[in-house]
Amino acid sequence: MSLNTMQDLLLQQLRDLYSAEQQLVKALPKMQEKASTEELSTAFRDHLAETENQVERLEQIFEILGERAGGVKCAAMEGLVEEAQETLDEDGNEAVIDAAIIAAAQRVEHYEVSAYGSAKAFATLLGLSDVVKLLNESQQEETAADKKLSLIATTEVNARAAGTQPSMAAKTS
Amino acid sequence: MSLNTMQDLLLQQLRDLYSAEQQLVKALPKMQEKASTEELSTAFRDHLAETENQVERLEQIFEILGERAGGVKCAAMEGLVEEAQETLDEDGNEAVIDAAIIAAAQRVEHYEVSAYGSAKAFATLLGLSDVVKLLNESQQEETAADKKLSLIATTEVNARAAGTQPSMAAKTS
Repeated sequence: MSLNTMQDLLLQQLRDLYSAEQQLVKALPKMQEKASTEELSTAFRDHLAETENQVERLEQIFEILGERAGGVKCAAMEGLVEEAQETLDEDGNEAVIDAAIIAAAQRVEHYEVSAYGSAKAFATLLGLSDVVKLLNESQQEETAADKKLSLIATTEVNARAAGTQPSMAAKTS
Repeated sequence: MSLNTMQDLLLQQLRDLYSAEQQLVKALPKMQEKASTEELSTAFRDHLAETENQVERLEQIFEILGERAGGVKCAAMEGLVEEAQETLDEDGNEAVIDAAIIAAAQRVEHYEVSAYGSAKAFATLLGLSDVVKLLNESQQEETAADKKLSLIATTEVNARAAGTQPSMAAKTS
């Protein structure tokens, strides 16, 4: 596909996001399953429901634009999911693994916040207010999911995981 | 590698970042070369210099920790770079391609901000203040690079790229 116009670019971004969200729909249940606490597992389950909605929002956008969805595979999300899968395949202490899964998931959220931000900017320039509104809803959910994971990490998981390594500071000082 | 302790997790994050930054050192010159304006090209050249410093900071951290650097390949950055390369391979309008390169580069910056954030949180829990300081310097550079790209996009590139598609709003309204 050539990038001749801003519309071409918006469509490139939307198809990339559509592939990314679909890949994430498949990856989130694995994170949910591996999470060792109810709180973290619930966060992933809730975000799966949001992600399914985000796929539908993108389909609405393609309908508004009169363009077909799909046709590309988001290489970045493939890498992000592969990285998350490597963490899911690790053995070790369950609190440390929870912290690692959160770190992988937050990278995904940051990626998506950026991707929605770019798509929003391009849709805004094209005067597509309905599209901007839908993209904004998804971006806000991604931002909230990232904050929720930070909260779970800082209030519960990280301290529990750090309890597994009390002597590190002494060792390296 | 098993994730038994917070130290294991910090090392996993640092090795992931080390691979990510090294991959980016190879990718940024291609973005610089493809950029059609002096301003954008300079932004990529400046960030390459920062990225080379970030690799050195990570090497300092491995030295502080008495651990070897390297040994893993960051799958997520492989995907991010592959996605950026797909954009670099596109033909089309140069302003639209500039906007696309910025969008790809900002996804990379967002990924790195998140990765440094996680590593900082784990180093903080381990009481490694020297490590936290170094990670913080790199994270601040990533955040600044992202903002710089946003500024270039919004003040110069996007409007020029949108000029290529004046009739989109009318077509879809």
